[in-house]
Amino acid sequence: MKIKEIKIEDLKPEKFIEEKIQEISSEVGKGLAINALSGGVDSSTVTMLGHRALGNRLKTYFIDNGLMREKEPEYVVSLFRDLGVKVELIDAKRSFFQALKGITDPEQKREAITQTFYKEIFGKLVKQTGAKYLLQGTNYTDVEETVAGIKRQHNVLDQLGIDTQKRFGYKVIEPLIQLRKSAIREVAKALGLPEEIYKRIPFPGPGLATRVIGEVTPENIDIVRKATKIVEEELKNTKAFIYFPVLHKDKVTGIRNNQREFGFQIEIRCWDSKEGKTGEPTQIPYEILKKLAQRITTEVSGVVSVTYNITTKPPSTIEVI
Amino acid sequence: MKIKEIKIEDLKPEKFIEEKIQEISSEVGKGLAINALSGGVDSSTVTMLGHRALGNRLKTYFIDNGLMREKEPEYVVSLFRDLGVKVELIDAKRSFFQALKGITDPEQKREAITQTFYKEIFGKLVKQTGAKYLLQGTNYTDVEETVAGIKRQHNVLDQLGIDTQKRFGYKVIEPLIQLRKSAIREVAKALGLPEEIYKRIPFPGPGLATRVIGEVTPENIDIVRKATKIVEEELKNTKAFIYFPVLHKDKVTGIRNNQREFGFQIEIRCWDSKEGKTGEPTQIPYEILKKLAQRITTEVSGVVSVTYNITTKPPSTIEVI
Repeated sequence: MKIKEIKIEDLKPEKFIEEKIQEISSEVGKGLAINALSGGVDSSTVTMLGHRALGNRLKTYFIDNGLMREKEPEYVVSLFRDLGVKVELIDAKRSFFQALKGITDPEQKREAITQTFYKEIFGKLVKQTGAKYLLQGTNYTDVEETVAGIKRQHNVLDQLGIDTQKRFGYKVIEPLIQLRKSAIREVAKALGLPEEIYKRIPFPGPGLATRVIGEVTPENIDIVRKATKIVEEELKNTKAFIYFPVLHKDKVTGIRNNQREFGFQIEIRCWDSKEGKTGEPTQIPYEILKKLAQRITTEVSGVVSVTYNITTKPPSTIEVI
Repeated sequence: MKIKEIKIEDLKPEKFIEEKIQEISSEVGKGLAINALSGGVDSSTVTMLGHRALGNRLKTYFIDNGLMREKEPEYVVSLFRDLGVKVELIDAKRSFFQALKGITDPEQKREAITQTFYKEIFGKLVKQTGAKYLLQGTNYTDVEETVAGIKRQHNVLDQLGIDTQKRFGYKVIEPLIQLRKSAIREVAKALGLPEEIYKRIPFPGPGLATRVIGEVTPENIDIVRKATKIVEEELKNTKAFIYFPVLHKDKVTGIRNNQREFGFQIEIRCWDSKEGKTGEPTQIPYEILKKLAQRITTEVSGVVSVTYNITTKPPSTIEVI
């Protein structure tokens, strides 16, 4: 199957929405569908499309992996409740932290999160509900990266631990596969999702785990979560592509109340980028950088030092691990 | 003994130099004095004063601990040779790297360097030469910090491994003890030392070892040494108090030639400060920061990321360890 992009200039959001609702309806028929909502633009859009098409026959789960922004699970569930969509919150924090214990290698961290999500948590839900249809927010950039060999094909059924021998009867529906992010934002807006969702900056799948160097523990996720809140508040008006803090493992010397304090360092990254393939550090005014450092070292316990990334991508990458 | 500061506005450099030459001459008489030159302003000034007072009866050693700037030992020895001062270069690199092996704690690193310098290397030279007078560049800020309890008293003879029982006969001469750094720079200039010496930014005693997080090895000293050269070249015109790179132990993801490269990160610090007690990050224009990052990631093998410190002192400190 050759997938054809719908470019943003050719997109008629209302017409697109009607067509996708029709397609999902006729595909699922009287059956049951399931999806995982993360609160990002893609999964929020898929959830709304599925809800419009299937109503209560779409089961939507928010899996709290413990690696989210502050109050994110409650925020997303309550936002969708206000839109008339029931989302079931699954507390899986313990499973994820257990899977991450002792792992320091970045690739192994990502793998542990993927495995826990698909095999342990979401895989079980798919089987329990008896749903035979899975809604996924795969977009055109994902397809393109697969073709280019940058990302491996998401073989969703395999990832869910659904044996290929028994695969018959399961079907993956990907209503956003012809759209890029900016077009998806248009659809999200037309679906009545609030600006705070359709304008959201990207957030990595493995969440705050990608923003901790070294082992991921509830304690250091808590530090980087507090810093994330401050960074997102202070850099909201930069219009940058993405901005976030990273907790380093290296400790550095500080002084507090005339006492030596061997403490944590936070690195801030803020990128100007069209689609993430290349990037330039945003030229944030020094007065804002100073305020960021001052707030983080005051409000986040244990942090004595803050730096700002000044490298382009390449040779840096957008995220730190 | 109460030491009285000579303030820069009361300093008459020529007169000060004549007085100190007289004092050193009459103190040492026909004896032999010894001193260690590091190439910093203080020890360079002491070397010139001692040389003027004693000529060949001052034995000056440059101890190459392997933790210096690029080509520093050769540079300092040759600069003083041109001024008519013979400096003996002692290659002690192996002793220092041996002493630092396996040590990651910042305080233990500093202690290992101090011990190797005083007990193992310079201590032996003092005994070998039979010198009974030690010239030291102790300045008024050192005295003040001792009184305030910030720094421990430099008990030089103890540090040299010269037993207090046998101390009699040894004497420490500190001709700069009434001056602060800016006044010492005036004296250095009046002594005919070149601008590159009397305007030199401070460089820590333990050298580049303080600019490597984690274990100090010849390999990572080499990385931070190359970065130091670039940072000093690019930030020379900032008029900042001090500027330097730090090699982190944490590795971060980069991309080079479309390949993932898990590489090193360098943090740059550049401080506006009067005397180092408090400090503000210098507001370096982004175009210079960009050039710094570009040069370091291109010219220093293995480095894929560069950050800039944006924290004030306090709660940061000037150096990272």
